[in-house]
Amino acid sequence: MRYLDAGESHGKALAGIIDGLPAGLKIDKDFVNNELKRRQSGYGRGGRMKIETDKIEILSGVRGGFTLASPLAFIVKNKDYESWAGIMGDGECDLSKRVLTGVRPGHADLTGCIKYGFSDARNVLERASARETAARVAAGAIAKLFLNELGITVGSHVYNIGGVKCACGNYSAAQLIEKSDLSEVRCMDPGAAEKMMKRIDEAREKGDTAGGEAEVVVSGVPAGIGSHTQYDRKLDYALMGAIGGVQSVKSVSIGIGRDCADLFGSEVHDRIYNENGLIVRRTNNAGGIEGGMSNGEDIIIRAAFKPIPTVMKGLETVDIRTGEAVKSAPERSDVCAVPAAAVVLEAVAAFVIADKILETVGGDRMDEVKQRLMKKREEYGFQNNLGL
Amino acid sequence: MRYLDAGESHGKALAGIIDGLPAGLKIDKDFVNNELKRRQSGYGRGGRMKIETDKIEILSGVRGGFTLASPLAFIVKNKDYESWAGIMGDGECDLSKRVLTGVRPGHADLTGCIKYGFSDARNVLERASARETAARVAAGAIAKLFLNELGITVGSHVYNIGGVKCACGNYSAAQLIEKSDLSEVRCMDPGAAEKMMKRIDEAREKGDTAGGEAEVVVSGVPAGIGSHTQYDRKLDYALMGAIGGVQSVKSVSIGIGRDCADLFGSEVHDRIYNENGLIVRRTNNAGGIEGGMSNGEDIIIRAAFKPIPTVMKGLETVDIRTGEAVKSAPERSDVCAVPAAAVVLEAVAAFVIADKILETVGGDRMDEVKQRLMKKREEYGFQNNLGL
Amino acid sequence: MRYLDAGESHGKALAGIIDGLPAGLKIDKDFVNNELKRRQSGYGRGGRMKIETDKIEILSGVRGGFTLASPLAFIVKNKDYESWAGIMGDGECDLSKRVLTGVRPGHADLTGCIKYGFSDARNVLERASARETAARVAAGAIAKLFLNELGITVGSHVYNIGGVKCACGNYSAAQLIEKSDLSEVRCMDPGAAEKMMKRIDEAREKGDTAGGEAEVVVSGVPAGIGSHTQYDRKLDYALMGAIGGVQSVKSVSIGIGRDCADLFGSEVHDRIYNENGLIVRRTNNAGGIEGGMSNGEDIIIRAAFKPIPTVMKGLETVDIRTGEAVKSAPERSDVCAVPAAAVVLEAVAAFVIADKILETVGGDRMDEVKQRLMKKREEYGFQNNLGL
Amino acid sequence: MRYLDAGESHGKALAGIIDGLPAGLKIDKDFVNNELKRRQSGYGRGGRMKIETDKIEILSGVRGGFTLASPLAFIVKNKDYESWAGIMGDGECDLSKRVLTGVRPGHADLTGCIKYGFSDARNVLERASARETAARVAAGAIAKLFLNELGITVGSHVYNIGGVKCACGNYSAAQLIEKSDLSEVRCMDPGAAEKMMKRIDEAREKGDTAGGEAEVVVSGVPAGIGSHTQYDRKLDYALMGAIGGVQSVKSVSIGIGRDCADLFGSEVHDRIYNENGLIVRRTNNAGGIEGGMSNGEDIIIRAAFKPIPTVMKGLETVDIRTGEAVKSAPERSDVCAVPAAAVVLEAVAAFVIADKILETVGGDRMDEVKQRLMKKREEYGFQNNLGL
Repeated sequence: MRYLDAGESHGKALAGIIDGLPAGLKIDKDFVNNELKRRQSGYGRGGRMKIETDKIEILSGVRGGFTLASPLAFIVKNKDYESWAGIMGDGECDLSKRVLTGVRPGHADLTGCIKYGFSDARNVLERASARETAARVAAGAIAKLFLNELGITVGSHVYNIGGVKCACGNYSAAQLIEKSDLSEVRCMDPGAAEKMMKRIDEAREKGDTAGGEAEVVVSGVPAGIGSHTQYDRKLDYALMGAIGGVQSVKSVSIGIGRDCADLFGSEVHDRIYNENGLIVRRTNNAGGIEGGMSNGEDIIIRAAFKPIPTVMKGLETVDIRTGEAVKSAPERSDVCAVPAAAVVLEAVAAFVIADKILETVGGDRMDEVKQRLMKKREEYGFQNNLGL
Repeated sequence: MRYLDAGESHGKALAGIIDGLPAGLKIDKDFVNNELKRRQSGYGRGGRMKIETDKIEILSGVRGGFTLASPLAFIVKNKDYESWAGIMGDGECDLSKRVLTGVRPGHADLTGCIKYGFSDARNVLERASARETAARVAAGAIAKLFLNELGITVGSHVYNIGGVKCACGNYSAAQLIEKSDLSEVRCMDPGAAEKMMKRIDEAREKGDTAGGEAEVVVSGVPAGIGSHTQYDRKLDYALMGAIGGVQSVKSVSIGIGRDCADLFGSEVHDRIYNENGLIVRRTNNAGGIEGGMSNGEDIIIRAAFKPIPTVMKGLETVDIRTGEAVKSAPERSDVCAVPAAAVVLEAVAAFVIADKILETVGGDRMDEVKQRLMKKREEYGFQNNLGL
Repeated sequence: MRYLDAGESHGKALAGIIDGLPAGLKIDKDFVNNELKRRQSGYGRGGRMKIETDKIEILSGVRGGFTLASPLAFIVKNKDYESWAGIMGDGECDLSKRVLTGVRPGHADLTGCIKYGFSDARNVLERASARETAARVAAGAIAKLFLNELGITVGSHVYNIGGVKCACGNYSAAQLIEKSDLSEVRCMDPGAAEKMMKRIDEAREKGDTAGGEAEVVVSGVPAGIGSHTQYDRKLDYALMGAIGGVQSVKSVSIGIGRDCADLFGSEVHDRIYNENGLIVRRTNNAGGIEGGMSNGEDIIIRAAFKPIPTVMKGLETVDIRTGEAVKSAPERSDVCAVPAAAVVLEAVAAFVIADKILETVGGDRMDEVKQRLMKKREEYGFQNNLGL
Repeated sequence: MRYLDAGESHGKALAGIIDGLPAGLKIDKDFVNNELKRRQSGYGRGGRMKIETDKIEILSGVRGGFTLASPLAFIVKNKDYESWAGIMGDGECDLSKRVLTGVRPGHADLTGCIKYGFSDARNVLERASARETAARVAAGAIAKLFLNELGITVGSHVYNIGGVKCACGNYSAAQLIEKSDLSEVRCMDPGAAEKMMKRIDEAREKGDTAGGEAEVVVSGVPAGIGSHTQYDRKLDYALMGAIGGVQSVKSVSIGIGRDCADLFGSEVHDRIYNENGLIVRRTNNAGGIEGGMSNGEDIIIRAAFKPIPTVMKGLETVDIRTGEAVKSAPERSDVCAVPAAAVVLEAVAAFVIADKILETVGGDRMDEVKQRLMKKREEYGFQNNLGL
């Protein structure tokens, strides 16, 4: 399965093409639109989120509600394009408007201008913007529809905002799906959520921004997705790359992640037991991946996000046209995007796992995919039996 | 640039093919062999490291000391293959020897057997073994030779073993190259190094293993490697994926990594200054990557390694043939491989960056690559001037 | 440079994403639209061509007429979608309309239904249709704009329709661009063109269809695009694959192609001369490619197209729902599409060559690409000098 | 499945890595070595073929005769390396020996020197040489072992040498396997074979070389391999690219190929019949591919090879160091390699089809692959039944 997307933040639309979906997958657009809405929600979002209510428009690959196996192209229109058409259009434009030369620290602005030969960071920031993640959420929503039919679910929660952490329990995807959206910061612990919102308020009052950490859990992935045989076939290669490619992510972990560095091997590795003929583990420090493969346990991925680099109070920088010291001017921006970013992580993880499943079972059509995966599950399933 | 490798731990040899090197790169085999030796060194390595002194044998792509632009194939022989030929050979073998059915927690053993239909984890562990990283170190050494000609250097150090951490300063690649190898644990702080070795001793005495953390620094990468324009063209996508694909890595970070989650934006983002016509930053929290591109600062990558899963004292598991509860039997193994793993990280990072440079400047031959990169550096270089 | 497209023949729109264009390429939409028009022209086209006047709509990647280096997404709307919305829409549809079960010989109908589990070949034919080539012509037009800035031009002509052949001279791209569109069958020889049109009339009268052959010439490609070093880096690998992937193509040749099989080596290979310090060839039997690389001469590609499989008079087949013998029912179709197909070949060849140039010179932006290519040309150029 | 190879003609060895083979494939090295021998045979081969008897040496990925799913690395040693070690070694060499500056028309010599900055075409020709195809034959032999287990067979024959053509019948792969190797020119018609050998003799006497044409037939491929859904997923895209990437190929066709251009649609397209509940075709003009997919009929691929460019009597050229007009000096070479080249085509076609099968059915191990493919065959098989 391949995926490319396109689109500037204030351009006409985001667009995406998913190539390689099997035929016969039911596409529930309400589900996709709800995922887009989840990405737009969350305490700490700025004004822009309100003017947009993103909707997917499918251009191809789906007929009468089901995929045709042909590439699925979609767009998500930018609601405020009308007011930007004269600035961001593909034809004649007034390029003297909305120029950004005081390149913002933490953004692609400066390097993008250098690399591509621009003297207006507008030409960079429009694509580097996290707005692009709306397309990835749409693609990830399609991947989730695929996974759901196979009994695989994906959830997430936020466990740190600006240093305010909750005591992070072990949740299944189902628990996260049920509960985390009930919190404005998508935190499972209401007490911590209160404090996180206060932290966001504090940042807002200071004209500052806050980052944080989120966790994605994927339940129901059968053992044996990914492979130990080549470095770039490993599931952690794919997941850590894809999550690392999400805007603002500065750290990615699987399972207990960094904490394993402080422990002895006997404290870390998940022992294996035979319980009435089923092979089970009673812990999941590995986060569902051993030797580059899913091991049948929940896949647990964590990521840390830097604070949004567009800081209202401005940061010291230079104007790339004049060389003068200036303060970075704020684009319209959020204070904290971690709750939304967690939704993006779900989407990205879902897409990677869907892709790896297709790699393992092939599959021109959903009935075939299901049947083959069920067969694999029967053989070793969620809980492996000892018929080997 | 593409790279594939192959080889079982006790097979005839590891083999690798690097496709896409420019012509005219000088290949210093002593350098490559020294890198292989660095991977084999370090406090905490077991007996095997002593019997092997890995050497690269180049089969193609190099003539009279210089690359031909044709694919560079190499092998690294496994010194103890002779005694394994009857067990691991490609022809008739005694498959009843060295069978491993008590699948080891934390390894690919169990999942690999399930996925590929084996009842002897030998068939999995031989490839899943970290022995494979010798090939990657060889490939990375070639990448380093390429980078060195362009004024780019790569160093690493260990800052945590089993929870014993050093105060991690800001080191340039040159400083790391000069000093870290002087320590048996590749730690820059001799005091901490002492404690780390004690920690390793403690693990050994307990029949246990230790993990840790290491940092790679790449100095001299010009701004503009990677791209913000598509998720999988980002430099962090490539680096975090590749590092995530290294055996035992459970966490990858860029720059201050996870710590950015606890801070406000104004505390994190590296301000930009005009110092006598040069654009400079005075901090490098971003770790050299903004918006998916190198920004001209040192690239700083950290990774956490889980403890080696082969624990001498054994861990509870099951025998996959009988279903009986057993203790995992130790393969010959190390107590701590973090100093070596840091060398692997260097190699992997070097390869990714070399690849991304070729993507940006193309380059059929070294003189062209150098000239184009110098031109790019003149334009904005290590320290960007304001000629834009 | 990567490219994916999407779109059903009677769906909302064709869509494409071109990823990896350099910044600063001027996008002339009139040029692109004219290319789309060229694809729709030609003697032998059916009614549908008249209702559609394809226009590109750019969604992203272009601002104020120039590329941003970010992915260029475009759509080409299907003009008659309105009347198909209830049949081909992504939501609820009347799937009992426009069902095709009498699978048409020569089409994807039967195999597509088997592979993807459909009982209505509509689900296959909508994507398998040559309508998709409109997207490729749009993408190829962008590639031509890129090539044109580098002094590279692409032309084509038809030299066989249904067995009526012209005496095929040696034309440069410039000659073909100037003249071939003047003929309704895009043939350079007006006498032969007359006969070709008669052949098409004959086919039409018989309720039949005609195929043919076309040639693409690319002038101005510097020596050294592609590589001899790995099978899939060869320019002929890329070109023959891409042309072979065009609907209806059953044969692809480079240079004198099949004819070289009948001749001795001394009759085939293009001798090399030193003319006043320039290295020249006086023949171009090789068609501009030797050893997997462009050699500086015109690149000459020929392809043979099978007759359109949708034959008005119908062909013996079976109904896949009933198993009954039936005649294939005609979809609205053309009698001969070879003049249009030649335009598609131009587009596909242009895209491949643009991609290979970027592989060789890299290039974040057009000024860089131009400068590097000019430098390469100076070194050996169209006509190699002996400064080596 | 991925494949890379490496190796210079007079270097130490050719090397290849096949990545992505399923576990449990039986590797019969005698079969592979016999394929290598078939490549070395044929009327018209020069002296070198006699000194070499190529043998595969497997370095990894195979244990006790079966694949491990880990990458299969192999080498094929160059028997005469010993006498070339001082010229072609990777370390210090005498680069003044065996210099080739009179660049040979029809070879990569001139362009390769220009592109890569060499003044000795030895640096190019060693890799551009058809010697590389030994590695591809080895890889293709592995692919054949895979296909054979699935009931798929691959044969070839030569139907034209230097303009001497046989009347080319319709042969199944089984017929070709049985008979074509009995002829020194691998021609199915003994009378024509006589004439072909005379043609080769004629070329030899004149100090010249001869090309020709060959056909590959793949029998037993189930319908539905490849896809119509994206240009680069089409089976013809993959096959025509891969065959086009074979040394000396100047034309590739599927089925009746170019001849379809001269016929009407009703004369070309293979009608579909219901014979006692089986869907059958009675002709195979399409050569087994419709709409980018295998349709269950024999896959028939033809290719034309240019005469070997190394002509004993020499061809006019220039010396790239002096600019002087010279005659190209002959490297040791064959007069006609078409019989061997046909074996290479088999290998390349086998690899492509094996890869496409794995894409469709996935498959970590052979039992799974077989089972899934059998299921697909039951559904529509070689001869489709009407159970849809």
